[in-house]
Amino acid sequence: MAGQKKHQVAVIGSGNWGSTIGKILAENTAEHSDLFHREVRMWVFEEDINIPEDSKHRSKYGDAPQKLTKVINETHENVKYLPGISLPENLVATPDVTAAVKDASLLIFNLPHQFIGKTLDGIKGHHLPYARGISCIKGVDVSDGIVTLYSELIMEKLGIYCGALSGANIAPEVAAERLCETTIGYDTPPMDLTSNDGSPKHNLVKVDEQRQVKTKPTSVELHPVPQDYPHVDAELWEALFSRPYFFVHVVKDVAGVALGGALKNIVALAAGFVSGKQWGENTKAAIIRLGVGEMIRFGRTWFPKSVNEQTFTEESAGIADLVASCNGGRNVRSATHAVEKGVGVAEIEKTEMNGQKLQGVSTAQTVYGFLDKHGKTGDFPLFCAVNNILEGKAKVEDLPALLNKKK
Amino acid sequence: MAGQKKHQVAVIGSGNWGSTIGKILAENTAEHSDLFHREVRMWVFEEDINIPEDSKHRSKYGDAPQKLTKVINETHENVKYLPGISLPENLVATPDVTAAVKDASLLIFNLPHQFIGKTLDGIKGHHLPYARGISCIKGVDVSDGIVTLYSELIMEKLGIYCGALSGANIAPEVAAERLCETTIGYDTPPMDLTSNDGSPKHNLVKVDEQRQVKTKPTSVELHPVPQDYPHVDAELWEALFSRPYFFVHVVKDVAGVALGGALKNIVALAAGFVSGKQWGENTKAAIIRLGVGEMIRFGRTWFPKSVNEQTFTEESAGIADLVASCNGGRNVRSATHAVEKGVGVAEIEKTEMNGQKLQGVSTAQTVYGFLDKHGKTGDFPLFCAVNNILEGKAKVEDLPALLNKKK
Repeated sequence: MAGQKKHQVAVIGSGNWGSTIGKILAENTAEHSDLFHREVRMWVFEEDINIPEDSKHRSKYGDAPQKLTKVINETHENVKYLPGISLPENLVATPDVTAAVKDASLLIFNLPHQFIGKTLDGIKGHHLPYARGISCIKGVDVSDGIVTLYSELIMEKLGIYCGALSGANIAPEVAAERLCETTIGYDTPPMDLTSNDGSPKHNLVKVDEQRQVKTKPTSVELHPVPQDYPHVDAELWEALFSRPYFFVHVVKDVAGVALGGALKNIVALAAGFVSGKQWGENTKAAIIRLGVGEMIRFGRTWFPKSVNEQTFTEESAGIADLVASCNGGRNVRSATHAVEKGVGVAEIEKTEMNGQKLQGVSTAQTVYGFLDKHGKTGDFPLFCAVNNILEGKAKVEDLPALLNKKK
Repeated sequence: MAGQKKHQVAVIGSGNWGSTIGKILAENTAEHSDLFHREVRMWVFEEDINIPEDSKHRSKYGDAPQKLTKVINETHENVKYLPGISLPENLVATPDVTAAVKDASLLIFNLPHQFIGKTLDGIKGHHLPYARGISCIKGVDVSDGIVTLYSELIMEKLGIYCGALSGANIAPEVAAERLCETTIGYDTPPMDLTSNDGSPKHNLVKVDEQRQVKTKPTSVELHPVPQDYPHVDAELWEALFSRPYFFVHVVKDVAGVALGGALKNIVALAAGFVSGKQWGENTKAAIIRLGVGEMIRFGRTWFPKSVNEQTFTEESAGIADLVASCNGGRNVRSATHAVEKGVGVAEIEKTEMNGQKLQGVSTAQTVYGFLDKHGKTGDFPLFCAVNNILEGKAKVEDLPALLNKKK
């Protein structure tokens, strides 16, 4: 009986990555009218914007400040966060998060991690109890000796099952429809499996089953997706996210997908350090290989039941994202500049980034604190070396000795 | 009783990579006097050279042509192939290959593949029957629908067991002692194992056991290394090759180590093609990831018993060498230039490389011919796309469609 209803899709967030994903979703809902309602709702944090001088829409609006949602819906362009990219007309911006999620069976979360908690508070109670989610939020939350995936935070707060999407996906390049790939981690709850039509109405997902060290055991009572919707499984997510320029691979390992997007930033700093010394491609490749090794070890140690080593070594969310981040992007660039100029990375954050903080720096610090708390620094020489270089306790020249297993 | 004798080491070949490896070997034989004779012999293909104008040794020799071996032994520098790098005084060049291998229990092969056959003819009958070898020769031989590893060729011709060394090892960077890593593939013959002191005197190694498609079954009768030598195993190779700037990892998968060094060159061309289009880091990372996937598939298909997938995904001979080759080197550079200029790669070989052939081009062609012969082109879309682009049958713009699994 599956398939009488169609899925309503909502995307929560509209930065450059949120708008890019919104574009992809809307392209696909238009193509797969058997599975999805055509209109995709995009929640936009409302703000008054000035149309940039060089925008082709400048003449239409002039100098007067405009509501961002109004401009997106009238011009089909996010002139502030994704300028120059045409968005499908069936991607509709709304400033009201409860209106965005109303009746939406598929919720795609794509906003900066610092806003996720408050946004979930606004959604709670207004969403379908049987909705399913995908978190496109990069990284993981590490605090108090606990690693929390944003997908888990969403599960806990909203009581819905949520997977994760990550990959070598620099937003403007995806928006420009340049060939790339991504990985979706989604471990379909048993009650939703095609083969399980006589499943129980409710299912408990124990969030802490995935973790070795979480102190707060949490479980979520899931509501099954009603049988008259198309099954929410790997195939459906592929239909919703795949484009001819955007290849999607769905795996079950949600934790690995999320961890890859976090830990790669530490390795990117190390790649920047050795690039700054002009040690060449051999050395950078060695750093990347050693980095993958520590990512695997991190996953195995703290998510032994759920992490699959191949997520790191064979998926876009692992090796591809790591390689792209070590070849380009702010972390590697800033670390390179710091070494070239003989200053600390903090100095580069101040002088070249207007005080903005690099993701790699905060990740290196929190991961180091986490490893130290668990007495595991000795197993992660590269991660720890990056932190110690950032803190001025080690030098880039020390890397060969710090990374040599035969000391 | 193991250990009364010491190993004599010889390196066959003295190009920039041969001289670099010779330097490493001689540094280590000097440090491990319990395991090795101090002197390392390096066979040099003798030639008359002119000392370069900018060499610090120019004043000593002036304009007169000199024997290369004489200059190496007097200046401890290979002024022609590795200028500017000091070689240890215990690395001794000899133009006589039979003198080089005499009494040598460890033979390190490091010369261009086109010279290996003839050189082995010169060695045959002059080496110790129980010698053990490591081939540093990049790549594999593909012809007549048969993949042959150079280590196998050495085994067959000399009747000695031989492993392989490969990794992200651009020679001048290793010679300059910049941090990098390598992988040695060596599957210690049972008769040489520490645990097997009462082993048979002779052991048959069936070369074709590793291969799915070889038509010519070959086996080699091995002589055991006498018990009064230090055991020839992973630990010994690490002692001989590891330096504080050169990390060595020994694995059993000889075929994977050799295949990685060959197949990466095809992927490097693809990386150059998309770089030439300026498709960005996402796309290059996707090409690398898809490339690793096809390397694994190639290994699994034709070396199902011997290849270990992790050699490609986790070793320097796999992912690290691939990443380094996609970021720098002649293959990626030439392919990038070709696309930027809107010409074929053959044109770049003519105009920018004095007609020298790129390794990636010949590998792409022979691998394509091999896949075609076995009816397997459909399983290797990236390898085949590279060949078709080289032959003008496909365009770089076709890559997204050619690589998309959902056609």
